[in-house]
Amino acid sequence: MTTESVPLLPRPIVILVEPQLAENIGMTARAMANFGLSELRLVAPKGGWPKKGVRETASGATHVLDGARIHATVGEAVADLHYLLATTARERGQMKRVFAPEDAMREVAARGGAGERVGILFGRERVGLSNDEVSLADAIVTFPVAPDYSSLNLAQSVLLLAYEWRRAAGLAVLPFDGGMRSPPAAREAVLSLFESLEGALDAAGYYPPEKRGGMVRNMRDMFHRMQMTEQDVRSLRGALRALARRPEES
Amino acid sequence: MTTESVPLLPRPIVILVEPQLAENIGMTARAMANFGLSELRLVAPKGGWPKKGVRETASGATHVLDGARIHATVGEAVADLHYLLATTARERGQMKRVFAPEDAMREVAARGGAGERVGILFGRERVGLSNDEVSLADAIVTFPVAPDYSSLNLAQSVLLLAYEWRRAAGLAVLPFDGGMRSPPAAREAVLSLFESLEGALDAAGYYPPEKRGGMVRNMRDMFHRMQMTEQDVRSLRGALRALARRPEES
Repeated sequence: MTTESVPLLPRPIVILVEPQLAENIGMTARAMANFGLSELRLVAPKGGWPKKGVRETASGATHVLDGARIHATVGEAVADLHYLLATTARERGQMKRVFAPEDAMREVAARGGAGERVGILFGRERVGLSNDEVSLADAIVTFPVAPDYSSLNLAQSVLLLAYEWRRAAGLAVLPFDGGMRSPPAAREAVLSLFESLEGALDAAGYYPPEKRGGMVRNMRDMFHRMQMTEQDVRSLRGALRALARRPEES
Repeated sequence: MTTESVPLLPRPIVILVEPQLAENIGMTARAMANFGLSELRLVAPKGGWPKKGVRETASGATHVLDGARIHATVGEAVADLHYLLATTARERGQMKRVFAPEDAMREVAARGGAGERVGILFGRERVGLSNDEVSLADAIVTFPVAPDYSSLNLAQSVLLLAYEWRRAAGLAVLPFDGGMRSPPAAREAVLSLFESLEGALDAAGYYPPEKRGGMVRNMRDMFHRMQMTEQDVRSLRGALRALARRPEES
């Protein structure tokens, strides 16, 4: 378990403009919590707030929903922010910088590190943000989607930015690694295992004499690719002893 | 619009083991299509197949669902693959390599480039993959989630790997850039605009004489930060002329 190492620096605020579906708001909360974001603002959610079913789809990330602030307009929702990004899937003819997710989140993490409050605007499910809403932003974020299927779900786009933010903020630590629970075997132990194996195979008449040299090298190459630990060598040595005790019928 | 530049190379196959919810399968199909994946395999989907409502949540990515293959066991679903990854959120005590998403997808893209068929196993919604299923894989992928809220939705985890695969495969092209539709202004045009502005402000009595030098430099610095295009200079020049025609009352 790691702890969040920069808890006091501002993290980006997710602002959903007129979201409609409870599932999308719930899944947004969950995606935010997965990568350490917590501040959610909703601008005029369609059908009012709170929405039926939203807590179920948030699947435990209810602290994000409970803390969500509701605003009547985008202007009100972004009033206290220092830097604002707008997400959009299509060209708007606006002369703004256009970021890929990772570059956008590097900028956001740097500004957060300098104490700025940063927001990210996400548009309506069907029609996205209006040009006037995009115009409120300092820069645009768009996603490197497949050109033949570019329609990204609202919560999915939140997820990608939350994931990239966590990486850019230096918090992307894996929950566990593949560390070996046994130290790597020293070459001496590996060679001794090879000699036992080759001796057993000699006794079993496995090698045609003229091919023995090449066959030994090939099999040693295979076993070297396992990068054995001390435990691995012990396990194989035990298996070899068991086989030698009960030789197959010949 | 870009076209897919490596259409013939194998792309990773997404394998869902006993998925339960139609929304998750539909959203998985959508996430795959967003980033150019198309081959989906379902192992013993709970409640049978096809599932009610799955096409609606796929939101147009129905070609992925229509092409999905159904298998009775994980072993059958992975039989033709050359390399297999298992996604898991928790340590299994298995001595396998553990990848972060981007490193895993670099490996997958490289193997696809060499013609290998690669699969990625995703477990059940609540309990994930069994240890025996993880054991079938060459390596593990896990996600750098926040330690206090690490439960990633099934389709969200598919999305992150599809996104990283597209990047690793060199296909992550943004649908548009922020290219300026007017060339950058030459310094001569910018300086001429500054002189017009400062002349108008002189005429309006804006500058206290002893502070004029510093104020001019500060305002020039502000305008330089705009990195004006030729069109920007023309727009500001027009605005300045309009203001000079109708001076405010003094």
